[in-house]
Amino acid sequence: MKISEQDKTALFLGIDGGGSGCRVRLCDGAGNVIGQGEAGAANTLLGLAKVFDEIQAATSQALAQAGLPADTIAQLHAGAGLAGLSLARERDSLATYPHPFATFRAEADAYAACLGAHGGDDGGIVVVGTGSCGLALVGGEVHTVSGWGFALSDQGSGAALGRTALRQALTEHDGIVGSTPLGRWIMAHFQNLPEAIFLWAESASPGDYATFAPWVFAAADDNEGSAMALLGRTAADIARLVEALIAKGAPGVALVGGLSKPILPWLPDQIRPMLVAARHDPLHGAIMLARSELVEP
Amino acid sequence: MKISEQDKTALFLGIDGGGSGCRVRLCDGAGNVIGQGEAGAANTLLGLAKVFDEIQAATSQALAQAGLPADTIAQLHAGAGLAGLSLARERDSLATYPHPFATFRAEADAYAACLGAHGGDDGGIVVVGTGSCGLALVGGEVHTVSGWGFALSDQGSGAALGRTALRQALTEHDGIVGSTPLGRWIMAHFQNLPEAIFLWAESASPGDYATFAPWVFAAADDNEGSAMALLGRTAADIARLVEALIAKGAPGVALVGGLSKPILPWLPDQIRPMLVAARHDPLHGAIMLARSELVEP
Repeated sequence: MKISEQDKTALFLGIDGGGSGCRVRLCDGAGNVIGQGEAGAANTLLGLAKVFDEIQAATSQALAQAGLPADTIAQLHAGAGLAGLSLARERDSLATYPHPFATFRAEADAYAACLGAHGGDDGGIVVVGTGSCGLALVGGEVHTVSGWGFALSDQGSGAALGRTALRQALTEHDGIVGSTPLGRWIMAHFQNLPEAIFLWAESASPGDYATFAPWVFAAADDNEGSAMALLGRTAADIARLVEALIAKGAPGVALVGGLSKPILPWLPDQIRPMLVAARHDPLHGAIMLARSELVEP
Repeated sequence: MKISEQDKTALFLGIDGGGSGCRVRLCDGAGNVIGQGEAGAANTLLGLAKVFDEIQAATSQALAQAGLPADTIAQLHAGAGLAGLSLARERDSLATYPHPFATFRAEADAYAACLGAHGGDDGGIVVVGTGSCGLALVGGEVHTVSGWGFALSDQGSGAALGRTALRQALTEHDGIVGSTPLGRWIMAHFQNLPEAIFLWAESASPGDYATFAPWVFAAADDNEGSAMALLGRTAADIARLVEALIAKGAPGVALVGGLSKPILPWLPDQIRPMLVAARHDPLHGAIMLARSELVEP
């Protein structure tokens, strides 16, 4: 079912689902924002039932804001950028999952973010949030770097930064290296008991690790050497992702995600000429996805 | 129930329970080895029911070898070094768990290994196996370093080495750094699919990660620079644990565990004077524990 660009009666929903939350934006056919909503984490690795529960909750808010009845959901043309969809296994599950919309196109969150950041033109993004990953659209081709999960990838992310800070704190506590204010601050949070960190880590999610990233930024603001060194390494990791995307042909790279602003001052000078500002946010990219499914080019 | 050193009728069982297996040694009152046995992993984090199942299986073998009926288990004076017992939570669970022996004293595996390595005298050990940790007995005091689990500690271990090699392989595959023979070898094992590593990592144990450690040693034997660099970092991590134990007063440190021999040539020269050979193995230390529970000093 394709419609023309001129059909102004269509309703479009953009969905941005990540590991810490889900946001939606509802637009009319002319592109006016008529509602928005927010709900819980919607990474597909958390299970599609949860993902669609959160999407539904956020969409209900957006429809209510727009003054539309809840069952209008069945008329929406939805586009989604969802964390987890870089995995074929997750895309396969989603393909057969019953969605509540008129049409639905979902891609990895980084893909939608890249569409938005460059308005569909060639370019790259590096997502620096709880996780990290890089993606570039170059001449119709998609290139990805990193983003293979907290255990083995996601370098430069908030979760990886938090984990490094916790490791460092334990190493200091054991007397393996000299102690620092940041390390003592973290250990005090765990009652100065390594066992307390161990027990916490048994069930800690990447999001839990990422809660310690602001501690590192705060300590670095106090000119603490160890925290500044940690941020320097995080920034170097991000720089390598940017450089890899430029090497794959991206004319410029936008940093997006919660840590993209605070990490800026720490980035090495040589990558600054490679950085561009995002033209639009990931929800804009998600709405572009929704329209691409529907509108004749 | 204490007996004299002269009671030669007593039977002593030493137990060494780790993340990859459980070994026992049965000795008569004169210290002669009369049986031994082996069974599956007996880290207390795997659950005490499993731990005692494995201990029981290994003990049955040892009793059979000694020509003793299976119900002799109730007469054994057992001492155990068990992985996981550095955690107070695990020690508390064990304290109320019904054991099948006449007497039973359990300590962390590193503690029993240190008793064995120095025959009860002052000294330290660094366990370099699937996990890592350091422990020193100095003037009756116990000092520990590292060993707070794979997520945040255990630097220099086989699991940490395997994880670093996998991370490196992914980074090379994505074009973030140049590729190496080791990285290509690892990626080929995963069908050159980052997603395959991601899915593997979702359920990989430290022991699974450690299976890649021998790959790094093999590549380093071929003079591969990246593998040699990984081993240099692993060796430096181990050296820091050795130095920390010396700083805590250990007169010498013995390396024990599966990687302690292969990593030797990679250790920095300055720690060699701090190293001593273990006098006895961890099972000997476990039998010392068993006797300490029973024999009047």
